[in-house]
Amino acid sequence: MSAELDRLREQIDQLNVRILESLNERAKLARAIGTLKVGQAYRPEREAQVLRRIKEQNQGPLSDETVALLFREIMSACLAIERPITVAYLGPKGTFSETAAMKHFGHAGVGTPTPSIDEVYRKVQSGEADFGVVPVENSTEGAVGRSLDLMPNTPLKVCGEVLIPIHHHLMSKGKRELASIPRVFSHSQSLAQCHEWLNANLPGAERIAVASNAEAARRAAEEPDTAAVAGEAAALHYGLDVLSSNIEDEPNNTTRFLVLGDYEPMPSGKDKTSLVLSANNRAGAVYEMLTPFATRGVSMTKFESRPSRVALWDYLFFVDIEGHRDDANVAAALAEVGKIAGYIKVLGSYPAAVL
Amino acid sequence: MSAELDRLREQIDQLNVRILESLNERAKLARAIGTLKVGQAYRPEREAQVLRRIKEQNQGPLSDETVALLFREIMSACLAIERPITVAYLGPKGTFSETAAMKHFGHAGVGTPTPSIDEVYRKVQSGEADFGVVPVENSTEGAVGRSLDLMPNTPLKVCGEVLIPIHHHLMSKGKRELASIPRVFSHSQSLAQCHEWLNANLPGAERIAVASNAEAARRAAEEPDTAAVAGEAAALHYGLDVLSSNIEDEPNNTTRFLVLGDYEPMPSGKDKTSLVLSANNRAGAVYEMLTPFATRGVSMTKFESRPSRVALWDYLFFVDIEGHRDDANVAAALAEVGKIAGYIKVLGSYPAAVL
Repeated sequence: MSAELDRLREQIDQLNVRILESLNERAKLARAIGTLKVGQAYRPEREAQVLRRIKEQNQGPLSDETVALLFREIMSACLAIERPITVAYLGPKGTFSETAAMKHFGHAGVGTPTPSIDEVYRKVQSGEADFGVVPVENSTEGAVGRSLDLMPNTPLKVCGEVLIPIHHHLMSKGKRELASIPRVFSHSQSLAQCHEWLNANLPGAERIAVASNAEAARRAAEEPDTAAVAGEAAALHYGLDVLSSNIEDEPNNTTRFLVLGDYEPMPSGKDKTSLVLSANNRAGAVYEMLTPFATRGVSMTKFESRPSRVALWDYLFFVDIEGHRDDANVAAALAEVGKIAGYIKVLGSYPAAVL
Repeated sequence: MSAELDRLREQIDQLNVRILESLNERAKLARAIGTLKVGQAYRPEREAQVLRRIKEQNQGPLSDETVALLFREIMSACLAIERPITVAYLGPKGTFSETAAMKHFGHAGVGTPTPSIDEVYRKVQSGEADFGVVPVENSTEGAVGRSLDLMPNTPLKVCGEVLIPIHHHLMSKGKRELASIPRVFSHSQSLAQCHEWLNANLPGAERIAVASNAEAARRAAEEPDTAAVAGEAAALHYGLDVLSSNIEDEPNNTTRFLVLGDYEPMPSGKDKTSLVLSANNRAGAVYEMLTPFATRGVSMTKFESRPSRVALWDYLFFVDIEGHRDDANVAAALAEVGKIAGYIKVLGSYPAAVL
């Protein structure tokens, strides 16, 4: 048995050498591409293509997810030889935004925790950071709205998206019976995400929306008998007991982040395009404005309205469609929408999230 | 130029396939070793040997540090096929303890933020976590003493060490002249680590030791004119301006963590051994107790005394020596020390930190 162990270890050692040589050879090639000076070294569309191919070619036993994550780290390390990519995200350390930044740029990227969404935009616009990562959907860190409101006026482009799974737990100060809890605090997004579970398990409890899940946990820590819906970190920080785990109705509950930078990715083969639109305030205007997408066979993956802070328009519509702005059908649809909409801004075309 | 770019990318794609195949083959071998059932799958001494060899064999352009980090991730991913390693660390997320846990076990390990050092020990002892990571030297998270005090009574073994570089900054609410600052708050460890810099730059300021660097930042945020010495995360969390960065006297300022588990690593070729000793309270007793190390040529890398909570002894001495307890000279020295010391406990022999 020990001889067999030695034999297997010997084989692993030989493989390690081969992997090491391949990694360094890869780094040399990446550097050679860098010296060609064809635009910037980090090409999100190319990374997305590489990761998709890796997942297709993977035969296991490593999972598709695992090999993609390892290659993200390898690409991140190769890029960092010249200069590591700097990424501003909504801090402090430990937030989902940090997780998103590292998932997208790998751990050879340099993350900069930043105190506000506005400051993330500012750092990227001033060149202090190469890219910024901001939450745009389903976040319970209370920053989604601000991320969107800053989009119409920024010169930055959306050049990527990141999806992070989110779990919610019911927690309180000390263990208690669910039936005995009169009030539950949480961010409105989280309450909505756990709606069914709360109906079934805490039908009599009052639900109180507060500014953030951290604030909810703080309230639950101060007011005996109450509970909060929040993440693991909040339970730990406020010394609460988790009464029930993973109570979100949708098991694939994710927060979506966008990557902002001074860069427009080329088509990767599977892209999305984000835009902001505004319509005149009359019946049927919105429907009319979206018709070109339907007639050109362009799928819409998101449609969200927000009160406008831009003069003239009452509402802005944040729309995501499938495809790249350079794709023929997308280009044609955008041209037509542009004629109908009062205001249109293409925020960017970028590879759909691979990981 | 575009043809050259295509050619280089084609080469990278081919290399990617080769790396992918090697990674999966490596995972298969690791799994084969797992089925031999020769003790547990995670072998820190073997990992240390592999990482040292990788650093020796590395020809660049990737740095030794980078290839070692990539291989840590590869080993972590291969191990996780069977079952990911779970690691309890002093939370919340975002602490240096989390950084240490991920640096040592790779991101395929599952980190569990844990509210106290006592709880880290408890989780590992109960089998809820495979390993625990606790700060033991130079930490400003205020937990070093407790980590040590729990060592004499735990059945766990020390099976690894992790070193994390630490940087300190001077910060205050709003920008201000250094000369105008009357008081500086910080943890006593941090004040000591920035002693020279404070002497040179804030000679007139009173230095006030508080419970943690986070607490120092909070005080500086509340009391105008004052400043704090703390890390980047604290500046961000309390909205302070960094007046001066990296003010630690010793540029290689690190916090040291130990890895605890129900496992005794075999010799890796470059090991350390941690022990707790106690001597009778009489002049010369400590010197006498340590003599066997000197005569046997065993280097001591750490010697720290703490008030004892164990009956009979006034002080406990935490000692680290170079070498493994199975090394002939170490074994002989330990046997002799054991006869002289009032109390001796070998906490563990483990590979010296590679990363």
